[in-house]
Amino acid sequence: MDKRIITISREFGSGGRLIGRAIAEKLGIAYYDKELLDRIAEESGFCREMIEDAEKKARNSFLYSLASAMGAGDSGPESLSLNERFFLAQFDTIREIADEGSCVIVGRCADYILRGIPEATNVFIYAEEADKIKRAVEKYAVPEDSVKKLMKDTDKGRANYYAYHTGRKWGEHVNYNLSLDSGYIEIEDIADLIIMYTEKKLYK
Amino acid sequence: MDKRIITISREFGSGGRLIGRAIAEKLGIAYYDKELLDRIAEESGFCREMIEDAEKKARNSFLYSLASAMGAGDSGPESLSLNERFFLAQFDTIREIADEGSCVIVGRCADYILRGIPEATNVFIYAEEADKIKRAVEKYAVPEDSVKKLMKDTDKGRANYYAYHTGRKWGEHVNYNLSLDSGYIEIEDIADLIIMYTEKKLYK
Repeated sequence: MDKRIITISREFGSGGRLIGRAIAEKLGIAYYDKELLDRIAEESGFCREMIEDAEKKARNSFLYSLASAMGAGDSGPESLSLNERFFLAQFDTIREIADEGSCVIVGRCADYILRGIPEATNVFIYAEEADKIKRAVEKYAVPEDSVKKLMKDTDKGRANYYAYHTGRKWGEHVNYNLSLDSGYIEIEDIADLIIMYTEKKLYK
Repeated sequence: MDKRIITISREFGSGGRLIGRAIAEKLGIAYYDKELLDRIAEESGFCREMIEDAEKKARNSFLYSLASAMGAGDSGPESLSLNERFFLAQFDTIREIADEGSCVIVGRCADYILRGIPEATNVFIYAEEADKIKRAVEKYAVPEDSVKKLMKDTDKGRANYYAYHTGRKWGEHVNYNLSLDSGYIEIEDIADLIIMYTEKKLYK
């Protein structure tokens, strides 16, 4: 099999993580999601818990929201925040992982970090609100009375984080090779479709 | 084969029409593109040339641009313009075509007109500018010095038209079941991918 790198960006409740895992299992290739944070922490020397905490706060901060509305901020390396330094470590680790061989990477701006790499296929997974709520309540056991807020806050955080670090709009089709609504097709079938795309993708 | 209706929205130069034709040929089902205008004209009694002329002007008019920026206009049936009356005729004809059996429909807000119909799969085809220019010059014989302007004007017209009649944003992923970049994969392969999606699509 030729080398294939598949990045998955996804809305909360859309099943993107399950799709990523299904692809990795079907192809027998590496899968990075939460595992990525461990490796970044290990290689960069940052403490994982500290990073998670700082990121969580930043994703919903005014500065990140502003980036989402205005485009990326760039205040030079001398004023790098912890989050910015962590993003650079993440950048290096993701590039390194992609060098090593075929893999699936979920989230963490991997589509942007690996842009221009011919072996990379960037996918965005979304669904209608009712479908996402159903999945979150039934499969992820999110309490029904808090699911809407959790979904909204999580995706807003992702959009802010993406805009801040990439200057792009999260979920906009131009950033991905294909975008799929997971509400009308089984997880396994989406995985097969994405694998088929990677098999046919032209190198350029 | 179960009934399948595939609507294709596409950026100028992305090959969406070729993809639509390839799907129709592979499945042996009806294909509507320019043919649609003839049928709408025939069934509504409108003169085709007059419609084309009025539409062309409207697509780039201030009113349509405003709709694109502000959302759809609705000034009541008593003040319907020719374009609005034509859109209603188009609405009826597209619904009728979808009732008749499997088909591929390119453009004309068919995704919106057929929203909520379980057999309908809505697809958006796009590509990077360089890929679209290459296709337009090499395959559609558009002169190189005018291709950028023609592309920009055509897609702006499509976006305005779509926003005016649907109140939605043309090209936004939420309006489609899948969106595909045609610059990294052959037309025939995209057609196969879309067919595979329709085979697996859940009815709901």
